[in-house]
Amino acid sequence: MEYRKIKDEDEVRDAGVEDVGKSFLLSVPDNDLTSEGETKIDSHREKVKWKRKSVVTLALTVLTSSQGILIVWSKRAGKYEYSVTTANFMVETLKCAISLVALGRIWKKDGVNEDNRLTTTLDEVIVYPIPAALYLVKNLLQYYIFAYVDAPGYQILKNFNIISTGVLYRIILKKRLSEIQWAAFVLLAAGCTTAQLNSNSDRVLQTPFQGWVMAIVMALLSGFAGVYTEAIIKKRPSRNINVQNFWLYVFGMCFNAVAMLVQDFDAVMNKGFFHGYSFITVLMIFNHALSGIAVSMVMKYADNIVKVYSTSVAMLLTAVVSVFLFGFHLSLAFFLGTVVVSVAIYLHSAGKIQR
Amino acid sequence: MEYRKIKDEDEVRDAGVEDVGKSFLLSVPDNDLTSEGETKIDSHREKVKWKRKSVVTLALTVLTSSQGILIVWSKRAGKYEYSVTTANFMVETLKCAISLVALGRIWKKDGVNEDNRLTTTLDEVIVYPIPAALYLVKNLLQYYIFAYVDAPGYQILKNFNIISTGVLYRIILKKRLSEIQWAAFVLLAAGCTTAQLNSNSDRVLQTPFQGWVMAIVMALLSGFAGVYTEAIIKKRPSRNINVQNFWLYVFGMCFNAVAMLVQDFDAVMNKGFFHGYSFITVLMIFNHALSGIAVSMVMKYADNIVKVYSTSVAMLLTAVVSVFLFGFHLSLAFFLGTVVVSVAIYLHSAGKIQR
Repeated sequence: MEYRKIKDEDEVRDAGVEDVGKSFLLSVPDNDLTSEGETKIDSHREKVKWKRKSVVTLALTVLTSSQGILIVWSKRAGKYEYSVTTANFMVETLKCAISLVALGRIWKKDGVNEDNRLTTTLDEVIVYPIPAALYLVKNLLQYYIFAYVDAPGYQILKNFNIISTGVLYRIILKKRLSEIQWAAFVLLAAGCTTAQLNSNSDRVLQTPFQGWVMAIVMALLSGFAGVYTEAIIKKRPSRNINVQNFWLYVFGMCFNAVAMLVQDFDAVMNKGFFHGYSFITVLMIFNHALSGIAVSMVMKYADNIVKVYSTSVAMLLTAVVSVFLFGFHLSLAFFLGTVVVSVAIYLHSAGKIQR
Repeated sequence: MEYRKIKDEDEVRDAGVEDVGKSFLLSVPDNDLTSEGETKIDSHREKVKWKRKSVVTLALTVLTSSQGILIVWSKRAGKYEYSVTTANFMVETLKCAISLVALGRIWKKDGVNEDNRLTTTLDEVIVYPIPAALYLVKNLLQYYIFAYVDAPGYQILKNFNIISTGVLYRIILKKRLSEIQWAAFVLLAAGCTTAQLNSNSDRVLQTPFQGWVMAIVMALLSGFAGVYTEAIIKKRPSRNINVQNFWLYVFGMCFNAVAMLVQDFDAVMNKGFFHGYSFITVLMIFNHALSGIAVSMVMKYADNIVKVYSTSVAMLLTAVVSVFLFGFHLSLAFFLGTVVVSVAIYLHSAGKIQR
């Protein structure tokens, strides 16, 4: 299978990569240096890495949570008037543009070198369309699952993503979580679901068998796409993230262009590309683009597990902020779910494997 | 304060107690013996203790869970026709009788000695009325809290007991829980509450300030009574549990006799003591008596933490069994709560302090 091949190549390449890259890949401190000077540099490097990891995680949490708030806001403002496929295409285009601007600045500063050149080999680029393709399949399935589950039920079932990401992270990236961390991950899924409970949630238990299967398949696709993206990005640790993002997003643009042509060709032709765009629409596109870049950064400098925790906390933050912005009420279930998620975060950090 | 005095006496006495007693008190294996023979005896002793601990915990779980089922059954069968105070008095009397019968068998086998004689000193017996008195105050408060909270809301607030027991266990008995075990305890409380959620649960958030205060005071009283009972029973580890139970229950009888006279004197005089007793009533009295004895045993051979886990699992078991017996439906919240409680149990055992 393709991902096994990547994994094997990964291991072969590892031997040759520089130290920083190696420790990104393994996410463990390099403590095999003995001379004092090297240890100092090493501890400084660790600090820089830790800072970078924290900043991208915080950025992802804030962006995802404001994304949730924008969605609530746009829903309150009325129905979506614009075509969703054009908006998705704009998000991908914007991400590409931002990556190119960032690259331009780097080229100006450091010059073009092996790690930050945009040109690439077939061997490097061939895997980049896969995540975009997986998300496309998942989004197509999304239309069909609503035949079996209603929208609030689907929100509940989406928490399978947490479990599937953990399992695929273990299987594909071969990274270990301690038993306590696995327990924390189960709690994260249970806590997020609890926080989303409302008086109609029990209806989801009546989901027919096909609905459960589709929910699980979608969770696996989404988890696989995430883990695969991490594998691609981490495969070449020294490669500049903006180049890697550029190639990821170029294929995202292609797939979204196809979706747009298939689904909304007439509407775009008759009403125009930007028909129905409002100020909120533009804000949402910018927010989605920035969150997408934050996700890539988290994949590069942290991992899928951090991403899942970050987006879960964002979900809770969105609800709390909505209380102040839109006068929402928090339920007892939300409070209990938040307690469980908080304990899960503590346990994930307390349960770190000691090596 | 009284409990500090006990604690100090405890430490002084410890020096003189035999090994088995000492390790009951500290709940850690005695590994300071070096000769092979002694180590073997020691490991055998550990096994016996572990077995006894498991049996009493299992008994408490099964009895508490069938207690829940009997309550549902009696509610379905109709209103309580009998006087609750006479039933409580009967429970205490039955516990006393069972303790005496058990003692009689022990006397026949081993003869009367310092540890199993029924006669006692004022110094030993003076603390025994305290748990019964605390429970009486708590039960009196129970009448007043319903002015602020409805019955389902009170069920939710009762989960404060879990937290208060943990905190008082730490403060009064000075026993340590690891950080993971504290996290597990918070999860146990959150999980139990989640499992009990229903569409009306959010009303509990509207509880007025007095209601919260009373709920917390009641949780502290109940937690204190439990922890204090453990302190009394473990204070004299070599003393036979049946003697200790006898004295606990004698004072239980006294307090319940007073409650009966104050509240139901007329009814008992006019209608008779056993008016309205049915087969279920008798079953419930037997079940309560046996559960009470199981609680004492858990206090002697395990501790309050084990008791809380055991009764929490019993609550979940009651719900599952009720599905089969009474056709109840389990909610998604119940399922999520069960997941969280299960993880809490795992973490409590995984987080054991290694010494």
